[in-house]
Amino acid sequence: MVFNLRRLRRAVPGMIDAALVGVGAIGSMVVRAVLEDYPWIDLVAAVDVAPDKVGKDLGEVVGLEEELGLEVEDDLEVALIESVPDVVIVTTSSRLGDVFDTLLTAVGSGSDVISTCEELAYPWIVDPAAARLLDDAARWAGVSVLGAGINPGFMMDLLPAILTLPCTRVEGIEVQRVVDASKRREPFQRKIGAGMTPGEFRDAVNTGKITAHVGLEQSAYLLAEALGWRPLSIETSPVEPVIAERGVTTDYVKVEPGRVAGVRQTLRLESDGGRRIDLILEAYVGAEDERDEFIVRGRPPVHATIRPGVQGDWGTVGSVLNMIPTLLGADAGLLTVVDLIPRRPLS
Amino acid sequence: MVFNLRRLRRAVPGMIDAALVGVGAIGSMVVRAVLEDYPWIDLVAAVDVAPDKVGKDLGEVVGLEEELGLEVEDDLEVALIESVPDVVIVTTSSRLGDVFDTLLTAVGSGSDVISTCEELAYPWIVDPAAARLLDDAARWAGVSVLGAGINPGFMMDLLPAILTLPCTRVEGIEVQRVVDASKRREPFQRKIGAGMTPGEFRDAVNTGKITAHVGLEQSAYLLAEALGWRPLSIETSPVEPVIAERGVTTDYVKVEPGRVAGVRQTLRLESDGGRRIDLILEAYVGAEDERDEFIVRGRPPVHATIRPGVQGDWGTVGSVLNMIPTLLGADAGLLTVVDLIPRRPLS
Repeated sequence: MVFNLRRLRRAVPGMIDAALVGVGAIGSMVVRAVLEDYPWIDLVAAVDVAPDKVGKDLGEVVGLEEELGLEVEDDLEVALIESVPDVVIVTTSSRLGDVFDTLLTAVGSGSDVISTCEELAYPWIVDPAAARLLDDAARWAGVSVLGAGINPGFMMDLLPAILTLPCTRVEGIEVQRVVDASKRREPFQRKIGAGMTPGEFRDAVNTGKITAHVGLEQSAYLLAEALGWRPLSIETSPVEPVIAERGVTTDYVKVEPGRVAGVRQTLRLESDGGRRIDLILEAYVGAEDERDEFIVRGRPPVHATIRPGVQGDWGTVGSVLNMIPTLLGADAGLLTVVDLIPRRPLS
Repeated sequence: MVFNLRRLRRAVPGMIDAALVGVGAIGSMVVRAVLEDYPWIDLVAAVDVAPDKVGKDLGEVVGLEEELGLEVEDDLEVALIESVPDVVIVTTSSRLGDVFDTLLTAVGSGSDVISTCEELAYPWIVDPAAARLLDDAARWAGVSVLGAGINPGFMMDLLPAILTLPCTRVEGIEVQRVVDASKRREPFQRKIGAGMTPGEFRDAVNTGKITAHVGLEQSAYLLAEALGWRPLSIETSPVEPVIAERGVTTDYVKVEPGRVAGVRQTLRLESDGGRRIDLILEAYVGAEDERDEFIVRGRPPVHATIRPGVQGDWGTVGSVLNMIPTLLGADAGLLTVVDLIPRRPLS
């Protein structure tokens, strides 16, 4: 590990200086949360490439009444050199390839990095070479890099891993997340095919108009790693339609019985000795029993339910911001959320 | 930190050598669990002072069919010198004063230490001088010491702390643990006063025959620390009786309506800004809705329920054994379970 002035500074209690990259929907909520709920975080820079945001005050861009005295910049390198943040928060994309350059620049500047990028939660299965490069760069710079968020990053990996802490034996875990899309924004309802016929849905999946949730495999690998299980096989279902049994009308769509209400996706990971992880994700309009449910078969068994489910956008913002102090004290390198909690060795 | 051969050895993956101190009810379950479910833990010594156990084979003492080739010893120092364990598991007593000498001996031998001692979960509020001495000794020896278990150690502290990870704001947390005593052993049912008249119950509390759950205050301090809250006041209720509304008959006691079915205890911790932690513990025969319930008031709110509750004895054994690998990699000193999970700075 190279000498790192920021790591020394952190030994002194006080404010954590953060730079934000990506002032979109989630980035704007990060700004709001920091101002309202995180007296120990100081926003020192904001970066976005959108021409309608660059040069404007961050307060205006995120829709606040007040100006924040911080201008949205478009040059990340310059912003980091000028602001010298402890941590860079990246909220730009779900795909590792899209955030890779940003991550490398932030690491090179000597800052710890945390991102909502879903694929970064367990990047080795996406692009091992890129993950290795990031890990090497982070170790060289003496900083840590982490992908975090509500899912992946909490609901289907970190939390079920913690729920197994009282179990001497775990034979299987099933996590089911059911989201009522009626309460979500119009683009979300459209994205899951609400209102389509089953045929239209099939076409939309084939043409990539309807995509799977990004991060299901990441969660499975994270959970297996926390349990010390070696994944022998992983099978992810295609995106299936949830068919409406009764009519549902939301602010944006009308779904007749027999039409598509939304999507369902399942994953099964198998380890040796018949041990299994099942992840089930459903997002559809009219879901009546919104919940996150966790069934641990083991000694003792654990059956936990969060009802209704946790609001996803705020949940992602909280999962990211609350990890920062621990991340700043963690070992250098490319980390995962389960590196930060008690876990078992491979067995 | 002094040079410590064991810490170096741990860098090499492989077995973890453990010594067990206390071969009672929980200690025996530790032995069973290690043999059946922990291929990476090797029991290298067992210590107990009971004359009917010393000198016998550990397998016989814990009620196994097979001999384990490990004799129960009564001299801890000799046992540790001969077995050189990586970790010492102490399952002898709920009280810090009772385990203090054992802990200090284990620390002095250069082993990490983990104990089910309830008061050790947050010992600074029990005996600050003893806690300070333990912390100093552990740092000197380069080892870590931890109090763990299902409660305190998981249900009312570590788990609710983790459940707030997606929350940008936490205004209050309520944890309610309801245990159906009908399913527990006779001594437990007697201990909670099942079958007594309210008058007999009052007398039993006054004479110390009925005692409170040990560890409620520990949980409150742990949870506040994980949240970065400064406790301004803590109020713990006296042990109150739960009165039976209908008759209940268990294998051991008969409870008429109007008589005592068990106990109830509550704690309220207040921090600045009106933020509050409420812990409610009920153990009584005939409890119909056995559960652990977690209500987080915040942004976003979280409402989780584990139903039925997690079996306490196995839960304690799991909570202890599963922490060991993380403990062995942790910083030296007297730690708490929330030192091992993501937490927020004081605010």
